[in-house]
Amino acid sequence: SMVDSGSDLKHLYWKVTNPTLSPSHLQDLPGFTRSVYKQDHALITPESHDSDIRSVFDNAGHGFTLCNVPGKDARFIFVVQGAVTLTNVSGTSDKLTVDSYAYLPPNVDHSLRCDASATLVVFERRHDSLENQSTDQIIGSTDKQPLLETPGEVFQLRKLIPTSISYDFNIHIMDFQPGEYLNVKEVHYNQHGLLLLEGQGIYRLGDSWYPVQAGDVIWMAPFVPQWYAALGKHRTRYLLYKDVNRNPL
Amino acid sequence: SMVDSGSDLKHLYWKVTNPTLSPSHLQDLPGFTRSVYKQDHALITPESHDSDIRSVFDNAGHGFTLCNVPGKDARFIFVVQGAVTLTNVSGTSDKLTVDSYAYLPPNVDHSLRCDASATLVVFERRHDSLENQSTDQIIGSTDKQPLLETPGEVFQLRKLIPTSISYDFNIHIMDFQPGEYLNVKEVHYNQHGLLLLEGQGIYRLGDSWYPVQAGDVIWMAPFVPQWYAALGKHRTRYLLYKDVNRNPL
Amino acid sequence: SMVDSGSDLKHLYWKVTNPTLSPSHLQDLPGFTRSVYKQDHALITPESHDSDIRSVFDNAGHGFTLCNVPGKDARFIFVVQGAVTLTNVSGTSDKLTVDSYAYLPPNVDHSLRCDASATLVVFERRHDSLENQSTDQIIGSTDKQPLLETPGEVFQLRKLIPTSISYDFNIHIMDFQPGEYLNVKEVHYNQHGLLLLEGQGIYRLGDSWYPVQAGDVIWMAPFVPQWYAALGKHRTRYLLYKDVNRNPL
Amino acid sequence: SMVDSGSDLKHLYWKVTNPTLSPSHLQDLPGFTRSVYKQDHALITPESHDSDIRSVFDNAGHGFTLCNVPGKDARFIFVVQGAVTLTNVSGTSDKLTVDSYAYLPPNVDHSLRCDASATLVVFERRHDSLENQSTDQIIGSTDKQPLLETPGEVFQLRKLIPTSISYDFNIHIMDFQPGEYLNVKEVHYNQHGLLLLEGQGIYRLGDSWYPVQAGDVIWMAPFVPQWYAALGKHRTRYLLYKDVNRNPL
Amino acid sequence: SMVDSGSDLKHLYWKVTNPTLSPSHLQDLPGFTRSVYKQDHALITPESHDSDIRSVFDNAGHGFTLCNVPGKDARFIFVVQGAVTLTNVSGTSDKLTVDSYAYLPPNVDHSLRCDASATLVVFERRHDSLENQSTDQIIGSTDKQPLLETPGEVFQLRKLIPTSISYDFNIHIMDFQPGEYLNVKEVHYNQHGLLLLEGQGIYRLGDSWYPVQAGDVIWMAPFVPQWYAALGKHRTRYLLYKDVNRNPL
Amino acid sequence: SMVDSGSDLKHLYWKVTNPTLSPSHLQDLPGFTRSVYKQDHALITPESHDSDIRSVFDNAGHGFTLCNVPGKDARFIFVVQGAVTLTNVSGTSDKLTVDSYAYLPPNVDHSLRCDASATLVVFERRHDSLENQSTDQIIGSTDKQPLLETPGEVFQLRKLIPTSISYDFNIHIMDFQPGEYLNVKEVHYNQHGLLLLEGQGIYRLGDSWYPVQAGDVIWMAPFVPQWYAALGKHRTRYLLYKDVNRNPL
Amino acid sequence: SMVDSGSDLKHLYWKVTNPTLSPSHLQDLPGFTRSVYKQDHALITPESHDSDIRSVFDNAGHGFTLCNVPGKDARFIFVVQGAVTLTNVSGTSDKLTVDSYAYLPPNVDHSLRCDASATLVVFERRHDSLENQSTDQIIGSTDKQPLLETPGEVFQLRKLIPTSISYDFNIHIMDFQPGEYLNVKEVHYNQHGLLLLEGQGIYRLGDSWYPVQAGDVIWMAPFVPQWYAALGKHRTRYLLYKDVNRNPL
Amino acid sequence: SMVDSGSDLKHLYWKVTNPTLSPSHLQDLPGFTRSVYKQDHALITPESHDSDIRSVFDNAGHGFTLCNVPGKDARFIFVVQGAVTLTNVSGTSDKLTVDSYAYLPPNVDHSLRCDASATLVVFERRHDSLENQSTDQIIGSTDKQPLLETPGEVFQLRKLIPTSISYDFNIHIMDFQPGEYLNVKEVHYNQHGLLLLEGQGIYRLGDSWYPVQAGDVIWMAPFVPQWYAALGKHRTRYLLYKDVNRNPL
Ligand SMILES: [Mn+2]
Ligand SMILES: [Mn+2]
Ligand SMILES: [Mn+2]
Ligand SMILES: [Mn+2]
Ligand SMILES: [Mn+2]
Ligand SMILES: [Mn+2]
Ligand SMILES: [Mn+2]
Ligand SMILES: [Mn+2]
Repeated sequence: SMVDSGSDLKHLYWKVTNPTLSPSHLQDLPGFTRSVYKQDHALITPESHDSDIRSVFDNAGHGFTLCNVPGKDARFIFVVQGAVTLTNVSGTSDKLTVDSYAYLPPNVDHSLRCDASATLVVFERRHDSLENQSTDQIIGSTDKQPLLETPGEVFQLRKLIPTSISYDFNIHIMDFQPGEYLNVKEVHYNQHGLLLLEGQGIYRLGDSWYPVQAGDVIWMAPFVPQWYAALGKHRTRYLLYKDVNRNPL
Repeated sequence: SMVDSGSDLKHLYWKVTNPTLSPSHLQDLPGFTRSVYKQDHALITPESHDSDIRSVFDNAGHGFTLCNVPGKDARFIFVVQGAVTLTNVSGTSDKLTVDSYAYLPPNVDHSLRCDASATLVVFERRHDSLENQSTDQIIGSTDKQPLLETPGEVFQLRKLIPTSISYDFNIHIMDFQPGEYLNVKEVHYNQHGLLLLEGQGIYRLGDSWYPVQAGDVIWMAPFVPQWYAALGKHRTRYLLYKDVNRNPL
Repeated sequence: SMVDSGSDLKHLYWKVTNPTLSPSHLQDLPGFTRSVYKQDHALITPESHDSDIRSVFDNAGHGFTLCNVPGKDARFIFVVQGAVTLTNVSGTSDKLTVDSYAYLPPNVDHSLRCDASATLVVFERRHDSLENQSTDQIIGSTDKQPLLETPGEVFQLRKLIPTSISYDFNIHIMDFQPGEYLNVKEVHYNQHGLLLLEGQGIYRLGDSWYPVQAGDVIWMAPFVPQWYAALGKHRTRYLLYKDVNRNPL
Repeated sequence: SMVDSGSDLKHLYWKVTNPTLSPSHLQDLPGFTRSVYKQDHALITPESHDSDIRSVFDNAGHGFTLCNVPGKDARFIFVVQGAVTLTNVSGTSDKLTVDSYAYLPPNVDHSLRCDASATLVVFERRHDSLENQSTDQIIGSTDKQPLLETPGEVFQLRKLIPTSISYDFNIHIMDFQPGEYLNVKEVHYNQHGLLLLEGQGIYRLGDSWYPVQAGDVIWMAPFVPQWYAALGKHRTRYLLYKDVNRNPL
Repeated sequence: SMVDSGSDLKHLYWKVTNPTLSPSHLQDLPGFTRSVYKQDHALITPESHDSDIRSVFDNAGHGFTLCNVPGKDARFIFVVQGAVTLTNVSGTSDKLTVDSYAYLPPNVDHSLRCDASATLVVFERRHDSLENQSTDQIIGSTDKQPLLETPGEVFQLRKLIPTSISYDFNIHIMDFQPGEYLNVKEVHYNQHGLLLLEGQGIYRLGDSWYPVQAGDVIWMAPFVPQWYAALGKHRTRYLLYKDVNRNPL
Repeated sequence: SMVDSGSDLKHLYWKVTNPTLSPSHLQDLPGFTRSVYKQDHALITPESHDSDIRSVFDNAGHGFTLCNVPGKDARFIFVVQGAVTLTNVSGTSDKLTVDSYAYLPPNVDHSLRCDASATLVVFERRHDSLENQSTDQIIGSTDKQPLLETPGEVFQLRKLIPTSISYDFNIHIMDFQPGEYLNVKEVHYNQHGLLLLEGQGIYRLGDSWYPVQAGDVIWMAPFVPQWYAALGKHRTRYLLYKDVNRNPL
Repeated sequence: SMVDSGSDLKHLYWKVTNPTLSPSHLQDLPGFTRSVYKQDHALITPESHDSDIRSVFDNAGHGFTLCNVPGKDARFIFVVQGAVTLTNVSGTSDKLTVDSYAYLPPNVDHSLRCDASATLVVFERRHDSLENQSTDQIIGSTDKQPLLETPGEVFQLRKLIPTSISYDFNIHIMDFQPGEYLNVKEVHYNQHGLLLLEGQGIYRLGDSWYPVQAGDVIWMAPFVPQWYAALGKHRTRYLLYKDVNRNPL
Repeated sequence: SMVDSGSDLKHLYWKVTNPTLSPSHLQDLPGFTRSVYKQDHALITPESHDSDIRSVFDNAGHGFTLCNVPGKDARFIFVVQGAVTLTNVSGTSDKLTVDSYAYLPPNVDHSLRCDASATLVVFERRHDSLENQSTDQIIGSTDKQPLLETPGEVFQLRKLIPTSISYDFNIHIMDFQPGEYLNVKEVHYNQHGLLLLEGQGIYRLGDSWYPVQAGDVIWMAPFVPQWYAALGKHRTRYLLYKDVNRNPL
């Protein structure tokens, strides 16, 4: 049932795996989708998800379970639902539960085991290394990250990856209370991948305005004008991939 | 619950008052609607319904309950859910249940009483009378109307109002099996009001293509190119208002 | 068969009732049509024809057979295929064959009888009469009409109705050889209805460019920019309704 | 200065006469305007105001001062800034200050005198009278009007004109807290004129999304899909004209 | 030749009858025109002129010679090239040369005789008379009209018709130096007809931006956002019809 | 002749080489085509075919006969009409008739001989090899391939190439009964080439909706939202190229 | 002067250097151009020419004079006006007059000397060489090239470069009589550069229709649907660059 | 305050750091921006600036302060506000004040120190070196550069970098008086980055027309049709990056 019968039964980010139109989306309107793919942005909504989804710059897949994957690119994992155990090459194991995450440097052997079902967000990127710089494995949890300064803005910001120059991307967790919005209508060379973890609002991308909600995925190309406003009775939280620290030339 | 738990518990045209996105449409996406209003057609979907809805040429309201209404225009009433009792000026009473309907000539006093909840489709039109011609009150039921010839087409057609020249509009009930469609991509001077009673498919209106389902309402202006194809596992049935028998000049 | 097996077997204007896509248009693509209806013009092609087609300003129906019709508006009839017998109130009968036509003043009783099949173009217009002016019944044939001057233009022009002020519309027959086109890209207050009788080419209407061929019908609203170019190996001939001689205020 | 130096110095609805881009809008960008006029809606922003502005259905002028105007249509006046004295035919005078308003029936002689500067919103409408029904002069103030029920919605609603059938339009005062929005994405036959008195947000009209703020004027044609969401730190209040109580046929 | 060989040989408003693309416009590109007709405005350029051109609200014909026309509507005549002799019912004759004009009240018999070629702009309007008010015949010349105040604007303004309430339209002559533009991006209920007499620049109408030059004609519907900027080395002068002094309801 | 005179005389996939508009498409409308080429998809219809057609990612040519071609890329061949004999480097010969196919690894010498006319679909791709992995020559026939599971979907699926990781693309044969459609409105990183072998329906690609029929070719870029519904009285079958098993980074 | 005073005084291809809008294009409308640059095609018209113009795939400059240029890419030169002397590394000199051309292999030293003014079309391309294949210098003249077969088409075709596999592009000279057009609405992987040498007509590129004339330059990206129709009283001739003989993968 | 209180207090290029909408742009309309990013051009306005802005081809950032940056690409620095001290590898120091600039060859160590606040425009480009050619460090000031010839144009041009072939880009300073505009509507292979230093006007880019003012940034892709007209009472000055001297193949 779609009736929101008892919020205490629902884990954090419950809406991501139970978006408003789900679980009935397979009985949905023939040919109807909110998904959009344009030159400078994409919106990918639950009725368009299949098991092969990967975004154009790295794997922004939502909703697939990934177990025991050796990998060559750098990888970022965020647990949306369930729990997985991450074991790295030295044999150390970490249990990742909802809201926790890991950054895995390139060429580091590791495996992910899920005891029951789990939903992960996975970003992969061909690492752009700098001389005499290397990245380390990171295990963390969103609620342990400090709030950062956001001059001129009102949203709350946490970063999940160190800002040091060896890392070529970062993951932001951004929170907006209802009625709050980005003051700067940003235009920048950085690319974004975004997963709405909680809440609902309006995303403007170029000339297009999209109602969005938890479970929606967005891709923003470099330079697309971008802006968000949170609506409703609860906070919006989204997870945002951003490439940083490299010369865009 | 949106789960389609037992079709035997559902009355005819159940989907009209329980469209796929309902009853949760008030918790729906902020600002999101499938409703469209263009110069030559409109699509009005459940999340846009309020109690004042009336189409541009007559009252194609869906979902409001109408009791005891004296009226000056000609009026057509179709029962989608529940039952009403129609009493005319001579004191005769008729009980109208789901799938039955009435045509009430202009200037004929009458009242509609609903014992419990009921959902009606009501069309009103300023009657365009001809000399020496008058219209009569009609009480009928869709399943009593004969199937008519549709040369060059495959859909099943019933007409709810006599085709004689004194009536200035008619109501068609049109049925399509999955995969069937209109062979002629119609362009004509007649205006239409349409309520999808059962099923789902694609409606083309001018250059626009719309996924539609039971509960959706369409307005088609004169001359808009129009075409329908039925999809899914069950038949489509729609109710169609059409102005007829009058010089469009 | 669509093969153009012997042109000597084909009557004048044969393509109008046998357009390139016909007679197979009922087996055509689902939902596909070249018909367009915009605010300032319309293109109506054979796969959209049904028996009720009437243009927005008068009855520009193509392809229906009309017998024994008393009428209140002024009426113009042009025979595209077959033959009809026109009998007026004084009992005079005229046989109208392909390429012949009649103008019938308003309020003049008359009947049209077709011995076999016939295809007519019929224009009707609510006559806008002037004081002390009346119109007469006209019977004529296109090939009997003189070629008129067209300063600054290269097409050949005939008019089927007298140009005197009592008539509020005229019918032009315009011929273009392949490669010829309108020099003036016209913008004017007059409305047009057009039936392509022979040939093929490109019609520009506002910002839209349409490939057209014999059998296509066009409506042009007042002030729509308009232009035609004839293509192929044979002449284009079209029949054009134009309102004239009345103050557009 | 545009610096918001002390809110205690600003009267109610101060932003309407001091919108964010004012008072420098005459030095603004050449040719730049947020004003839009489409078939089914209009947005009129301060840089487009001249002294002749009137909306298409009645006079929704913003910012002009109107003194001593006898009138034949029904008239509604709302004071946005300053004060005026209304004197009617019987010699009674009322002082109208910010947030107060008057309804003047048709054919009632009256005059408006402003001692100093004043800014009024004036709506006029050709009164559509019913037999045996008449309307009365009304003097009122927004803060005296009771909050009304809004089933399924969260905004706060006041109506400035009686809902009885003799009145053919009403004026709604609607308040939204930041993050609040219309649940129903309305489509209805009623026309609207709107003046944003306080706050800022997003208005969706058909397929267009507009950032709006105090001082902006909107016209909504019948049937245009419409929706609003309030943003920022303060409430939105808008004044809304709506035609009611008359058959739209 | 299009070479601008000697400006001293050219009369005032020479460019109107000799636009940059003329006299070669008949050898112009097939199907190419700058003319546009949209719902809320039109641009009509020389390659679209034929002898029947009339704007939608009155006769904004450019380039036709009009002799001896009795008329029922009010009429305004402006001489662009050549000269005409106006004789009214009382036998008085006036010679109108370039830059002079006449206003003729409705129902006033008059004739226009041109000894040689002449080019006139003629506006006609069904006069909307007020009780106890009448209009008078006016003969004048632009250079005799005083410059008027234009608060907040920089252009130079002359009005050719009295501003008293009996006249339901006026004709403005507006001059802009290169680089000057309208400060207000106007939106108003009044309709406009415009003929560019001298110069060149950019006209914004709604969302469309048009390069324009002497000889171009524009129609602006009520409420279309409108703005002009003058460019080049010489002043722009345009003649502007505007309906005034009447309730738009 | 386009008359569908006897279906028993027609081989499988007859419509591909005899689409509805053929063989008269060379006498078709000047300048008219259903072909579309957009940033994220293309539709290529028979009136646009010439002998050089190749899709952007590999050779999706339709309708050309290819004999004796040594090749350096991997190649997939499917016989639509007629028969060819494939001889590989070891001298083995295979006769390929309608519905049979071959996969030829890169750098494998081979020749194709056609005794009479034949129509092939040929896909070529620069092979993306993996270490210690190679691909083998495959000869097969569609009707010999097993039906595969399609969880959440109703269409019938066969794959013509092994799913093992050494192959970097696959060919799907997908069958839909009339009224059936894709439940997921797919968005994925994989590119597609498609040839409609049988039937007709509607393809949605991004915001565009296309009526399609046997003989039509489609290209889908990565991430274009895509959806199909089958219409009419007979099944749709299409052949679908899909890149698989490689990291899209 | 634009007056077409005596055609016997005009050399072949005179219109290319004297297009209809020239030589007055510098006095043209401010900001007006027929030039268009879209993702899949471009139209470049004379008012956009400056001395730096080069097309995206090779140098399709029109109207510049090029003397003494050593070059590393392959180069094709066509003389539109005047004459040049080409001297190659071995000291051989050739005089190239109007309608003659040269192909210069890559890395071949050469110089071009013009005694008086000359207008050349120059295409350069980074040569894509094949093993054991080389290209030779070619000197030729259009009128010496044989007419080639064009099955299914009516235009006249000449090729200026050998069709052997060592050449990776060709130059076609295509002639159309008025009313003639391309039968195939081509879609192909080859790119085109085009210069209209004589005549006028309509070019369709994707969904756009362009009136074109001698002097216009077109770029067509791979796969853009393309079609031409010739209009007017004289033949159209255009010069067309096409990449050939190379695998597009 | 936005009041333009005394122009003598304002330094050169004051508007760039104080655009009309600033410093209040953070209190601006939610979601409103004039910024646009299209395939062939971008407009970036002050409300979209954040500290990471970099254009797609090099760093066209506006408004950030850059101190002590060793660099590998060639770099161009222009001082818009304040002053910086540039020290190169040999220890030479230069003070750069408003209107002065430096070109720094690639791989030349240097540092920039700003004593107080400063605003710089910085362009970086991966240097495309030619054999036996090198570039030198340049220190200059706009007002020391000579005016250059601009045949066929009226604007004033200065170049800040030598035109010799070793430099692969140049920086133009272009001045227009009100009413002046580009005569050629340019289409060329060169890319541009532009910062409007003074004034206001209209920029046409492809089919889009933009009001622009000091502080606005524009990116123009190769081949985008481009045109500017200056408006208002003061000159426009803009700084323009242009790639030159390299083969675009
Ligand atoms: Mn961002
Ligand atoms: Mn219909
Ligand atoms: Mn016409
Ligand atoms: Mn409403
Ligand atoms: Mn105006
Ligand atoms: Mn797919
Ligand atoms: Mn081609
Ligand atoms: Mn440029």
